[in-house]
Amino acid sequence: MAQASIGDSEFDRGTAVTLREPGVYDVQLTSGWTVMDVLNGGHLLAVIGRALGDALPHSDPIAVSAHYLTPAKPGPAVVRTETVRTGRTLSTGQASLFQTDEDGHEVERIRVLSSYGDLAALPDDVRTSAKPPAFPPPERCVTTADGPPPPGDFALIDRLALRMDPATVGWALGAPSGKGEIRAWFEFADGRDADALSLLLTVDALPPTSFDLGLMGWTPTVELTAHIRCRPAPGPLRVAITTRNLAGGFLEEDAEVWDSADRLVAQSRQLARVPRG
Amino acid sequence: MAQASIGDSEFDRGTAVTLREPGVYDVQLTSGWTVMDVLNGGHLLAVIGRALGDALPHSDPIAVSAHYLTPAKPGPAVVRTETVRTGRTLSTGQASLFQTDEDGHEVERIRVLSSYGDLAALPDDVRTSAKPPAFPPPERCVTTADGPPPPGDFALIDRLALRMDPATVGWALGAPSGKGEIRAWFEFADGRDADALSLLLTVDALPPTSFDLGLMGWTPTVELTAHIRCRPAPGPLRVAITTRNLAGGFLEEDAEVWDSADRLVAQSRQLARVPRG
Repeated sequence: MAQASIGDSEFDRGTAVTLREPGVYDVQLTSGWTVMDVLNGGHLLAVIGRALGDALPHSDPIAVSAHYLTPAKPGPAVVRTETVRTGRTLSTGQASLFQTDEDGHEVERIRVLSSYGDLAALPDDVRTSAKPPAFPPPERCVTTADGPPPPGDFALIDRLALRMDPATVGWALGAPSGKGEIRAWFEFADGRDADALSLLLTVDALPPTSFDLGLMGWTPTVELTAHIRCRPAPGPLRVAITTRNLAGGFLEEDAEVWDSADRLVAQSRQLARVPRG
Repeated sequence: MAQASIGDSEFDRGTAVTLREPGVYDVQLTSGWTVMDVLNGGHLLAVIGRALGDALPHSDPIAVSAHYLTPAKPGPAVVRTETVRTGRTLSTGQASLFQTDEDGHEVERIRVLSSYGDLAALPDDVRTSAKPPAFPPPERCVTTADGPPPPGDFALIDRLALRMDPATVGWALGAPSGKGEIRAWFEFADGRDADALSLLLTVDALPPTSFDLGLMGWTPTVELTAHIRCRPAPGPLRVAITTRNLAGGFLEEDAEVWDSADRLVAQSRQLARVPRG
């Protein structure tokens, strides 16, 4: 298969938006990006992120905060955007994704507040104590094809080429580590390189950290905020997700994404509900 | 001085909101909660959080995401809220705080998306790997009165009784550690106990972590999301803030807040601009 490119790939087709009128975009959500029959939250963030990047005067997501209201299903959807403030280096926008129910009513799926800017215009200074997560090179990691099938239907997996740290896949064999950590190399299955927009998917594309705590059910996201810190260099990304506090029926999940040039390109945190049972 | 109580304290008076019409609240922002003449971002979050807790069917903030648009000054303001979705255990709301400029135009200062719930109704399960930050007891920590005056005018400091970890105050003497860490015991100066609402202030009330990196200027917040995980027990709180990635003109600042019962009661992350010069 020829390598897909940015602009001509499964991800670009899956997140395509069509301008209906100023600020309003039609979307076709497809089953290829679902987990357990609902659209992956990171994929929805990328769809909305694409609409906002078109509607706002700045094109790169810098800080994107999403509150998840109701699960989105494959089918048509509409994204309505609002320009909240236009600044010199940052613009702020709001957007909501709606689907129409059987009775013809628009139901809101997700609402987003975001700050957009120009990642290429940022200064080069790096003054950081963060280090990339340490785990084996891709050839010593585990693909999803190596293990037993995941619990439930994860169409999303076929779009991705995840290679998991063997130390964080015990849950697939019934032996979770209990640490609440999952690490993986992330690439698109069709070879498309990462860009700022696709990082919005990457931060929410791994199996949930709750699997590593032995909780195998669905962890619906209540809120997810992603910070895009740098344009990713070509090549595979390293993603590390961790949970430090599962309590009171909720857990937080922190993600960090590192590129092939050892730059921390994205950080995210989400609050999710603990799986039942 | 008699100890202030929840409902009758400097914090409660400073965050008071008056219902003007359904969903709309008048506010008087006072100079007592400023840092360098603009309102502290955590204080604004608490003001808006109080309005949302009144407007929504659930009263406790669970996840609050704020995008900061323009600095707020002491004086009158209005908070306009919208109920986005009402669920059984969570409600979602949106709010904006506006001030009127010299020309009579309303200018938006901050926009917030939030999920509210009932912290008292959450299950008691705690399954966590997070540990409270290790630092000396209050009597071996440093009060703001012990050190040289802070750079600039920090009226906020007089509302608080911060006792700082001596290991993270080198910046006040011109010797920042360079680690990007600040830790402190947090109490209100008037003795008011913490509650879910006041935690929205606590996550943004310490000197910025950039001071510990030797950058003494203002770090305007672009975005801040706080997760309130548990009702705080009475007594002093421990707050630890850290920055791991200062790059490209931005830094993230993570806060965690622990109560006297060793429960992680709040987590937050903000994206801020790096001080100039």
